[in-house]
Amino acid sequence: MSTGAQPSSAGEARAVAVAPDRGARTVVGLVGLGAMGRGVAANLLAKGFDVLGRDVSAAACDWLRAQGGAVAADAQALADGADVILSFVVDDRQTEAVLFGDGDGRGDADGDRRGLASRLRPGTTVITCSTMAPAYVQALAPRLAALGLGLVDAPVTGGQVGAQAGTLTVMCAGMPAHVERARPVLEAFGRRVYVMGEQAGQGAQMKVINQLLCGVHIAAAAEAMALARHHDLPLETTLEILRSGAANSWMLGDRGPRMARAAWDEVTSALDIFVKDLGLVLDDSRAARMPAPVASAAFQGFLGASARGWGRLDDSAVMRGYTVPLDDLS
Amino acid sequence: MSTGAQPSSAGEARAVAVAPDRGARTVVGLVGLGAMGRGVAANLLAKGFDVLGRDVSAAACDWLRAQGGAVAADAQALADGADVILSFVVDDRQTEAVLFGDGDGRGDADGDRRGLASRLRPGTTVITCSTMAPAYVQALAPRLAALGLGLVDAPVTGGQVGAQAGTLTVMCAGMPAHVERARPVLEAFGRRVYVMGEQAGQGAQMKVINQLLCGVHIAAAAEAMALARHHDLPLETTLEILRSGAANSWMLGDRGPRMARAAWDEVTSALDIFVKDLGLVLDDSRAARMPAPVASAAFQGFLGASARGWGRLDDSAVMRGYTVPLDDLS
Repeated sequence: MSTGAQPSSAGEARAVAVAPDRGARTVVGLVGLGAMGRGVAANLLAKGFDVLGRDVSAAACDWLRAQGGAVAADAQALADGADVILSFVVDDRQTEAVLFGDGDGRGDADGDRRGLASRLRPGTTVITCSTMAPAYVQALAPRLAALGLGLVDAPVTGGQVGAQAGTLTVMCAGMPAHVERARPVLEAFGRRVYVMGEQAGQGAQMKVINQLLCGVHIAAAAEAMALARHHDLPLETTLEILRSGAANSWMLGDRGPRMARAAWDEVTSALDIFVKDLGLVLDDSRAARMPAPVASAAFQGFLGASARGWGRLDDSAVMRGYTVPLDDLS
Repeated sequence: MSTGAQPSSAGEARAVAVAPDRGARTVVGLVGLGAMGRGVAANLLAKGFDVLGRDVSAAACDWLRAQGGAVAADAQALADGADVILSFVVDDRQTEAVLFGDGDGRGDADGDRRGLASRLRPGTTVITCSTMAPAYVQALAPRLAALGLGLVDAPVTGGQVGAQAGTLTVMCAGMPAHVERARPVLEAFGRRVYVMGEQAGQGAQMKVINQLLCGVHIAAAAEAMALARHHDLPLETTLEILRSGAANSWMLGDRGPRMARAAWDEVTSALDIFVKDLGLVLDDSRAARMPAPVASAAFQGFLGASARGWGRLDDSAVMRGYTVPLDDLS
C-alpha cells in the first residue's frame, strides 16, 4: 500500500497550482515526454491546460519545467495531481508497466512499485495515444473499468511535426461519456478528432490499418527506386514523374528524396518502428483470419533490413537491402 | 512484295492533303484508336496536325473522320501518307503485329501481309506509346534501325482523362535526333515530356516502375479497406482518415471510394490490366536479378481475382478476394 502523498481532490490540487484569476484549469497527467509527448505538452500548455508530466528522462522533465509545466516526483504524485491521464509512451509493454506494474521502473519514492491504475481516483479517464495491438487495448478497458477508470483509446497520426504544430489526427474509441470528457484534451493537439466506435480497441484498429498503408508505401517506394537505380534511370527525374500522377503516395514524396540520395542517416523515423507496426498489422490480420500478403511482403523487407543492422537508420533504408552498390552511396 | 500504292515523298503527300493557305502540316500516322488513341487524335487535330488513322474498329475509324481526320485504307496507305508513326495499340503483341506481321490481321488490300515497318520510308520516326516490356522495346530499336527507321519509346501516364485533356505525362527515350523530331507530336498531347535516356527501352522501364507503384497501391488499399470492413469500422470515415495523412496515395483517393461502396461495376480501368502490368514488373525484376517481393504479393492479389472471373471488373475489385461477405454488397 502506498504511504506516499495523501490523495487530494482535484479542486485542492488546482487551488495550489493555478493563478487566482484563471479559475479552475484541468491538470493533464502526461506520461511519456518523448518527441511526441513534448509536442503535445507544449500545445496543452499553450491552450490553457496545466501539465503534470512524468518521464524516466531527467532532461525531458527539465524541459517540461522550463515550458511552465510541473513534474510528478512519482506515480502517486501523478495520480494525486492529475484530472485526466494522457499516455504517449512507446508501446503496449510500456503502457502495461506504467499502468499496472513498476511504474517507470524505479518504483515509487516509498518503494511501492504498483502502477498508476490502482492509485487513480475512480472516475478518472485514461487516454492512451501509443500505437498498440488492438487486442491489448480492447482487453485493457475492462481491467481499468474494474478499478472505476474509463479508457479512451486514442492513437494519433501526423508525427513529430504534427505533435509540435498541434495538427495531429486522432482516431479514438471508447464509451461516449469518456470520449466527451477526453475531447477538450484531444482537441488541444489534434486538428481532427474522429470517433471510430464505442469499444476501446477500435482506435487502435484504425491506427493499425493506417500503418499498413504507411509501411507498404515505404517498401513499395524502395522497390521502385531500387529498380530505377538498377536500370540507371535518373533518380530525381524518376521521382518527379512518379510523384506527378497515379503512382504518387504521401510516403513517396516524403521518403523518396532520401532514397534518391541514399540519405539513410537523415533519420526522421527509425526503420525498426515499421518492424513493430507492420508486426502489429500481421498479428491483427492473423487473429482476424484475414490475409495481408502485401503487408507481409513489406514487413519482410523491414525485418531483413533490421537484421542487417539498419534498424536505427531512417526507414527509407529499407531500399538499401535491394542492391549491393547502394551501400557505396552512403 | 507490295503492289499497292506507290511510295510518294512526304512533300508530295502534303501537297495533296493540305489547304494551300495552311502551309505544310505534319501528318501523324496514328495506329490504335482506342480510348487513349482517340483522346490523342483529338488533341493532335486541335493543335494543327493532320491525323491519318488506322484501327480494326470501323466505328473508331468513323469517329476519326467525323473529327476531321483521315483513315488509311491499309498499311501501305498509312506508310505512304504519314510523316511520323504514333502507336497507341494495347501491348507488345499488337505492336509486333502492326510493325512486322499481318498488320491489323486483315492483310493489305492486295493481300500483302507485311507489317508497316518495311513499308515506311527510311528516315521515318516510329513513336510507341503502349505499356510494353522494356526488353522488347530495347530489342525493337535495332530491328527498326536496320530498315533505316528511328524509334522513340514514349509510354504515357494520365489515363483516358489525361489523353482527352492533353495532359498526359510522357516518359520517352531514344536517340536525340529522333526524340527532337518526335517532340512536337508528343507535346501536342503531353503536358510533361521527360527524356529518360538515349536508349529505347528506358521509357518503357520508367513506365514499368510507375506501374509497380500504381498496382501495389491499389492492392494495399484493398488490404487496408478489407481489414477495416472486417472490423466493422465505418468505411467512409476510415477512408477520410487514411487520406488525411501519411497513409494517403493517389490510388487510395481514386479507388478507395469504390472499395468503400463495393462498386466493382463502375469500371474505370479493368482489373486484368494490372495482371498484365504487374506481370511486366515481375518479368523485368527477374531479368534484372532484383527482387520485388511487394510487387509480387500485389500481383498475386490481382491474379487471384482474375482467376475468380473478375478480370473485367474495376481493378478496385482486387478487394473482393479478401472476404466472403463483401460479395453480398454488390
